[in-house]
Amino acid sequence: MAQSRSAGRRSRCPLNVAIELLGDPWSLLIVRDMMFRGGRTYGEFLQSGEGIATNMLADRLRKLVRAGVIAQQPDDADRRKVNYRLTRMGLDLAPVLVDLIAWGAKHFSTSAPPAVVRRIRRDRASFLAEIRRRWKDGGPPLFGPVR
Amino acid sequence: MAQSRSAGRRSRCPLNVAIELLGDPWSLLIVRDMMFRGGRTYGEFLQSGEGIATNMLADRLRKLVRAGVIAQQPDDADRRKVNYRLTRMGLDLAPVLVDLIAWGAKHFSTSAPPAVVRRIRRDRASFLAEIRRRWKDGGPPLFGPVR
Repeated sequence: MAQSRSAGRRSRCPLNVAIELLGDPWSLLIVRDMMFRGGRTYGEFLQSGEGIATNMLADRLRKLVRAGVIAQQPDDADRRKVNYRLTRMGLDLAPVLVDLIAWGAKHFSTSAPPAVVRRIRRDRASFLAEIRRRWKDGGPPLFGPVR
Repeated sequence: MAQSRSAGRRSRCPLNVAIELLGDPWSLLIVRDMMFRGGRTYGEFLQSGEGIATNMLADRLRKLVRAGVIAQQPDDADRRKVNYRLTRMGLDLAPVLVDLIAWGAKHFSTSAPPAVVRRIRRDRASFLAEIRRRWKDGGPPLFGPVR
């Protein structure tokens, strides 16, 4: 599902293309909230631990929707409300997030649960498979706040 | 080698900690230039395909040195000149970069060499091992410009 838009890119290096979309202090945290914490609403992202400002959040959600990383869908209970879900393109960021979590936990003092870090290190593939399974099934979030 | 500094962080989530350092449009491109293209000097980073500005580059290099991702070392030929090298902490970003390259190449039209993308998909572990090996040996860059 490659997108052909390349106009205005700094370069066509695949890393650069990824970073032009995701290289900011917030986008991957929104993806995290959806992938690991079951976040679906504007209000949930706003209340996430890092204190994103409303205009920044709105801007990032718009950008991620436009790129196809997340999609809007009407709320089950109230069809006038908009929720967000990860697309397959967004789910494909799971390896990136998992590796960044492992890197952060290894090199800094963080709140990462040691059992999760160990599991990523020892059995990354099954951890990634579980993320995919839960995304498909719409199951409960893999873990609570990773804060 | 966990660093205990947590003052001023938005949260202690390991992903957030990683992103507070790397979540900008340039840092990972500098790491890329060092990891894959054999980049070592300010001039080389400046000439990289994306057109980073001098003040931005200086700022990012300072930040990455301070965090321990890269280190300064005197040039072999001219000891008054400063080069940069990836530290082990920087090398540990290889999985993140490789996953971002794979993600960018999958979802966008990029200049990624198909053989490299295929290798990442089929044999990620050996690709990562080769990156580590070359870093240790000081061997030639894994590939030329990935632009």
